[in-house]
Amino acid sequence: MNYSIVRYIIGWVLKFEAAFLCLPALVGILYHEKDCITYFCVAVACLLVGLLLSCRKPSNRSLYTKEGFLIVALSWIIMSLFGALPFVLTGDIPSYVDAFFETVSGFTTTGASILSNVEALSRTNLFWRSFTHWIGGMGVFVFIMAITPLLGGSTMTLMKAESPGPSVDKLVPRLRDTSTILYGIYIVLTLVEVLLLVLFDMPVFEAFCTSFGTTGTGGFGVKNDSIAGYSPAIQNIVTIFMILSGINYGMYFLLLRRKWKQAFTFEEVRWYLGIIAAAGCIIFFNIRHLFPTAGEGLRHTFFQIGSIITTTGFASTDFNLWPQLSKTCLVLLMFIGACAGSTGGGIKVSRIMILVRTIRKELASIAHPQQVSKVRMDGHAVGHETIRSTNVFMVVYLILMLLSVLLISIDGYDFTTNFTAVAATINNIGPGLELVGPTGNYAFFSEFSKIILSFNMLAGRLELFPLLVLLSPACWKKH
Amino acid sequence: MNYSIVRYIIGWVLKFEAAFLCLPALVGILYHEKDCITYFCVAVACLLVGLLLSCRKPSNRSLYTKEGFLIVALSWIIMSLFGALPFVLTGDIPSYVDAFFETVSGFTTTGASILSNVEALSRTNLFWRSFTHWIGGMGVFVFIMAITPLLGGSTMTLMKAESPGPSVDKLVPRLRDTSTILYGIYIVLTLVEVLLLVLFDMPVFEAFCTSFGTTGTGGFGVKNDSIAGYSPAIQNIVTIFMILSGINYGMYFLLLRRKWKQAFTFEEVRWYLGIIAAAGCIIFFNIRHLFPTAGEGLRHTFFQIGSIITTTGFASTDFNLWPQLSKTCLVLLMFIGACAGSTGGGIKVSRIMILVRTIRKELASIAHPQQVSKVRMDGHAVGHETIRSTNVFMVVYLILMLLSVLLISIDGYDFTTNFTAVAATINNIGPGLELVGPTGNYAFFSEFSKIILSFNMLAGRLELFPLLVLLSPACWKKH
Repeated sequence: MNYSIVRYIIGWVLKFEAAFLCLPALVGILYHEKDCITYFCVAVACLLVGLLLSCRKPSNRSLYTKEGFLIVALSWIIMSLFGALPFVLTGDIPSYVDAFFETVSGFTTTGASILSNVEALSRTNLFWRSFTHWIGGMGVFVFIMAITPLLGGSTMTLMKAESPGPSVDKLVPRLRDTSTILYGIYIVLTLVEVLLLVLFDMPVFEAFCTSFGTTGTGGFGVKNDSIAGYSPAIQNIVTIFMILSGINYGMYFLLLRRKWKQAFTFEEVRWYLGIIAAAGCIIFFNIRHLFPTAGEGLRHTFFQIGSIITTTGFASTDFNLWPQLSKTCLVLLMFIGACAGSTGGGIKVSRIMILVRTIRKELASIAHPQQVSKVRMDGHAVGHETIRSTNVFMVVYLILMLLSVLLISIDGYDFTTNFTAVAATINNIGPGLELVGPTGNYAFFSEFSKIILSFNMLAGRLELFPLLVLLSPACWKKH
Repeated sequence: MNYSIVRYIIGWVLKFEAAFLCLPALVGILYHEKDCITYFCVAVACLLVGLLLSCRKPSNRSLYTKEGFLIVALSWIIMSLFGALPFVLTGDIPSYVDAFFETVSGFTTTGASILSNVEALSRTNLFWRSFTHWIGGMGVFVFIMAITPLLGGSTMTLMKAESPGPSVDKLVPRLRDTSTILYGIYIVLTLVEVLLLVLFDMPVFEAFCTSFGTTGTGGFGVKNDSIAGYSPAIQNIVTIFMILSGINYGMYFLLLRRKWKQAFTFEEVRWYLGIIAAAGCIIFFNIRHLFPTAGEGLRHTFFQIGSIITTTGFASTDFNLWPQLSKTCLVLLMFIGACAGSTGGGIKVSRIMILVRTIRKELASIAHPQQVSKVRMDGHAVGHETIRSTNVFMVVYLILMLLSVLLISIDGYDFTTNFTAVAATINNIGPGLELVGPTGNYAFFSEFSKIILSFNMLAGRLELFPLLVLLSPACWKKH
C-alpha cells in the first residue's frame, strides 16, 4: 500500500470540500443567517487539514486498484466526518452520530433522514444537506478530475471505484474530458429543472434544493411532507427529472453526438423504461381505487416508481398505506435501481441484464451442450471478467444485506422495518416500509444501528468493494 | 430431447411409487382403517400408468443433462400428483390443490402444511405424509439406483440433478454402490432414532413418523403442537438426530472406513457445527429470560436452531414470540441450510464456504494483483466450473425468491409473512414467521399462491435448474 499517495489525494479532496462548504456559507449570508459563520469556520478547518495532508507531493506515484479503492472509501468517510460538523455546531442536529448519518445519507444520495421536522432547519443547513446530494450524485472524484489533472494519467482507478455500474465507460479517450462532459450534462439537467420548477411557482431556494435532490437522485426535501404538498405540475416535473436522472449518461452523450440510432437502441435504457412501464401497470391497477381520479392515481404511481427505481426517495404520498402487491413491487424496484453510469443507486439495470442473460445462457448450454454462447449487450459480448465481478458483487451484496439485517435486529424492531431499512440504505433510496416509511424517519434506531446503516449507504454508493478493502487487513499492509 | 427415455424412466418411478404406497396401506390394515383400500387403489393406478409408460424400452438410451434434469423435475411433480390422490380420496384434505401442496411439501422435506388439525387425520394418511419425507429426503432416484441397474452407466446425471450440493461426490467408483451406502446410513440413522424414541416412551407409530420427519429433515409431525408436547428427553433426542441428519453423509462414510483424521477435519462439517454453536450463543443469551431455567432455554435454543439450519421445521416452542434478534438469526439460518450431501435443504454450508472464500480471494487479488490464488476446500482447489455454477445458483435463487415474494403478495398479507413463507418453502424448512409461524399454517393462501409455493419447494429441493429446464422452451425441442 502506497500510503503517501493516499494521504496526498485525501488532502486534495478536503481542499475541494472546503470549497464546497463555502457555497452554503454564501447562502447563509444571502438569507442573513448566522450559521454562515459556522460554515466558513468548518471550511477553513477543512482547508487547513487538506493543505497539511497534501503539502508534500508523494515520491511514489503508483496508484493501483487497492490504493484507488482505499482512497475513495476513506475520502467519502472523511468528507462525511467533516460535512457533519456544521449540523452539530449550528445545533440543528445535536448528536454527532446523527449528523454523520445525515451527511453520509446526503453524500451517498440516499436521503434517509433522522430528522422528524426538516422545516426547523436553517436555510444554510437545508442548502448544505441538499447540496451534498448533488456532490455525491456524480461523484467528487469525477468533479476533481474535471477541474484539475491531479496526478496525470493514473487516476482511472479512482473513477472506477467511484462510478456506478459493472464496467466503466470512458465516453472519450481522455478521462478529464469524460469528467467534464458528465458534469456538463449534470449541470444542464439540474439548471433546466430549477428553471421549470421556478416557472411553476416554486420559490427559488426550494427549486435549487429540490433539483439537487432530483438530479443527484438523493431525496432530501425541504418540507416535512417531501413533495406531497406541491402542485401536481411540480410533482410531474420532478417525476420526469427523476426518471431522466436514472438514465445512463452515455445515452445523453450519444444524443449530443447526434448518434440517434445508437441512443434510441441503448439496451439498458430500454430495459429501464420497460421496467418502469411494467411496474406502472401493476401498481396503477392495484391502487386505482385509492384516488378519486385516474389522473391522480397515474401521477402518484409514476412519481413513486420514478422515486424508488432511481433510488431518489422523494414521496408524493404515503405508499406505506398502499396494498401489499404495490409495496412489494416498490421493494423489488429498490433492488433493481437505476442505470449504470447514472447518478442512481441499487444493483443497476445493466447488472440485472447481465444476470438474466447469464441464466439464459446457462439454460441454453443445458439444451445445447456443444454450442458456445456468449452474454451480449448492445451487440457486444460481455467480458468474462465483467460477468464474474457481477456475480461476486451479487454475493457480497447479499451477504452484507443479511448481516446488516441481523445486526440492526438487535434493536428489536419488526422484520419489515429492518429489512427495508437495510434495502433502502444499501440501495441509496431513503424511505422503506413500516417505521422507516415515507412519513417515518431513522431517528429511533440505536447509534450502533445508525453506524451499520451508514456503512451500508457508503458500501452501496461505492459498490461494495472499496468499503470491503477497508476491512481487509491484507490490503493495509505496506507491501 | 430424447423423449422415449424420459417416458421410460418416469414409468419406472411410478412403479416404485406404487410400491411405496403399499406401505401406508399395510399400516392401514394394521390399525383397521378403511383408508388402506384407497391406498391400494392408488397404488394399482400408479402401477398401471407406470407399466404403460415403461413397457417399451427406449431405442435411444442417450441421457444428457437436459434429459436428466427434465426426468427428475417431471418425476417429482408426477409423484406428487399421484401422492396427493389418497388425501383427497380419503376425504382428509378435500381440495386437490391443498393435497398437492401437502404432498410436495412432504416429498421435498419442507414440512409446510395446510392443515390446522393434524390429529384429525387417519393413521394411514399420517404415515404416508411422514413417509413422503423419508422418500424425498435421500431422493427417489438414489433409491431406485440402489435397487436396480435401470439403464446401466448413464444415470449419473439423474443423481446429479437430485442430490443437493455444489458438486456430487461419488463415495465409491460405482454409482450403485454409492446409492446403497447412502441408503444404508440413512436407514441405520432412522432405525436408531426410532429405537431411542421408543425407549423414552414414545408410541411406536409416532416414533416412526417422527424419525421419518427427522432423518429426512422434513418436519411434518403427528401432533398439532409439533414436538412441543413431548418430554424434554425426546426433544433432545430429536435435536441430536436433526443435527446429525444435516451432516454431509460423506463424513459418515469416512467414519465407516475408519478414516478418522479425514472425517474429523471435514471442513464443511466443522463450519456447520461452528455456525450452530455461534447461533446458539446469540439466541441463548437473547431468549434466556423467557424460560425459568437455563437448561430449558438451552434445550429450546438448540432444538430450534437444529430444526431450522437442517431445514427440518419441527418446533418445540413458538419462536414467533421470541425477540427480533433471535428471529432474524433463525431467518438467516434458513438461508444457510444444512451440509451438501445430507438430506437437508437451503443454500448449503459448502456453497456458503465457496462464496465466502471467493470474496476473500477477490480481496486478496486486489491487495496482491500479481498473485494467483485459488479457492480451496479440504485442501483441494475448487474447480472454476463449481465456483461459476455456485454463483449462478445464487443469482437464480435470488431472482426466484424475489419474484415469488411479489407474486404471493397479490394475496395481500404482510411482508414478513410473504418473505418468510417464500424463504421457508424454497429452503424446504416449513414454518416461517408471523402468519406462517410455528403455530400457523399455509391454509390461508390462495390456490395461486399455493402453486407458486409448491414450485418453490420443488425448485429448492432439486436446486433450481431442473425446474428451470422445465420452463425453458429451448430444452423441450426434439433436437
